[in-house]
Amino acid sequence: MPDLSRFALNQITTPKWSMGEAIEGLRRHGIPGIGVWRRFIDDYGTAATARHLKDAGLWVASYCTGVWFNRADDAGLQAAIDENRKVFDQAAEVGAPCVVMVVGGLPEGSKDLAGQRARVRDGLAALREHATGLGVTIALEPLHPMYAAERACLNTLKQANDLCDELGAGYGTVVDVYHCWWDPELKAEIARGGADRVSSFHICDWRVPTRNMRDRAMVGDGVADVAAIRSWLDEAGYDGPVELELFSELDWWQRDPEEVVAIAIERCAPFAGALEERTA
Amino acid sequence: MPDLSRFALNQITTPKWSMGEAIEGLRRHGIPGIGVWRRFIDDYGTAATARHLKDAGLWVASYCTGVWFNRADDAGLQAAIDENRKVFDQAAEVGAPCVVMVVGGLPEGSKDLAGQRARVRDGLAALREHATGLGVTIALEPLHPMYAAERACLNTLKQANDLCDELGAGYGTVVDVYHCWWDPELKAEIARGGADRVSSFHICDWRVPTRNMRDRAMVGDGVADVAAIRSWLDEAGYDGPVELELFSELDWWQRDPEEVVAIAIERCAPFAGALEERTA
Repeated sequence: MPDLSRFALNQITTPKWSMGEAIEGLRRHGIPGIGVWRRFIDDYGTAATARHLKDAGLWVASYCTGVWFNRADDAGLQAAIDENRKVFDQAAEVGAPCVVMVVGGLPEGSKDLAGQRARVRDGLAALREHATGLGVTIALEPLHPMYAAERACLNTLKQANDLCDELGAGYGTVVDVYHCWWDPELKAEIARGGADRVSSFHICDWRVPTRNMRDRAMVGDGVADVAAIRSWLDEAGYDGPVELELFSELDWWQRDPEEVVAIAIERCAPFAGALEERTA
Repeated sequence: MPDLSRFALNQITTPKWSMGEAIEGLRRHGIPGIGVWRRFIDDYGTAATARHLKDAGLWVASYCTGVWFNRADDAGLQAAIDENRKVFDQAAEVGAPCVVMVVGGLPEGSKDLAGQRARVRDGLAALREHATGLGVTIALEPLHPMYAAERACLNTLKQANDLCDELGAGYGTVVDVYHCWWDPELKAEIARGGADRVSSFHICDWRVPTRNMRDRAMVGDGVADVAAIRSWLDEAGYDGPVELELFSELDWWQRDPEEVVAIAIERCAPFAGALEERTA
């Protein structure tokens, strides 16, 4: 039996499944962890989700996602902060150790990328007290630069580490293979963050050719060196979740989730075991 | 009359035009410079291109592009180097001051991004003597990270500046708005390079939404802050070409080149004037 002790399936990988179906599906397949999404929790009910997760004995790797800060006006930014507080409440209720912050792109009509990055910092800072009170980490996810305009103006692990250094305790990062595999600074920034900086390691692969903006490949089917990135995290001492997250409009989202999960286990097992086993 | 003294149209913007038609089109519209592409030169003939450019009084901003280094074997890499030498010969013959090096992505079957970046450095180093002998600058163009696998593993201006520092005289960079607008280090890296580092400034815009991998917007139609980036180049003392380069399968490539050029002049004029005028 492969060691899947750190493996989690992010439920966006199997969007045909409701929350209840995902929980049962992972239990059936022996996957111990899950990454949960807000809309599936909302559909199933927060309390029902928390209860079902507990009954199934699943641990939660991460909660996706925070609310975008792409608002040009102060009232809008404040509304995003307020909504994010509710997100953190919900994350705490379902037992998520962190909320993955996808910080939003540029506000409508804006070209002020540096200014928006500063506003994002302010928004993240405003969440600290509430999040730390709940014991939920504010996990900063750099998104691939091709999403800078529309989804997140936080685009490199260096930016995320800089924010963590600036904002203090309560913040972490998400290292996602799809978003970061190209970055010449990735190895150095993983080492810089150290063992406790990373909240979750999201794995998948970079497809060649890339046909659209939601076209991730299953681990092993692309050109990203997942083994190397995991080894850098090992060297840093990271021993948290290894979480498969696939956005795949043209392929994996169309398949039967049973098939997706079976293949996922096979492909992810080499990267999903305990830290000690691999470094021994 | 707007000051278009630094303005060049990269001919990939008007792919319906042959080389001869492009040269006549730019002359007709009063655009003083052109960015030339290998395949249009090959179709028209190198000597014919050189003669026609001279007769029309156009200056050449850049030659696109160098040959990809994405070869895993040493013989393949050597073949790419040899082919690039011919590219530099042709560039010199048509009066191009630089060859825009699009360095290629990963070799077929490879996941070794760091290793390929090292091979690219070796390939670029091997071109130095030939290129400097011709007086043609080896212009390193960082491509957007979304092209890292398939077109270029050189993805940030920091990487390009690092290579220039390492490889010595004979190298420069291309700052392309589409590829670099998202980069949090862009301003600092432009300042780092100084006045003589940049061979050409490629302008266009980042479209929202981005529909495919060749979907650039006309200057002014997207979210990139072209004015800010030009101001950073002004501060560095850059006074070279300002070159419009549009890849646009769904829009601009389908239009009548006459219309494209007329709109291009209107949109690019604010950025195409002399350095002195803007900083006065």
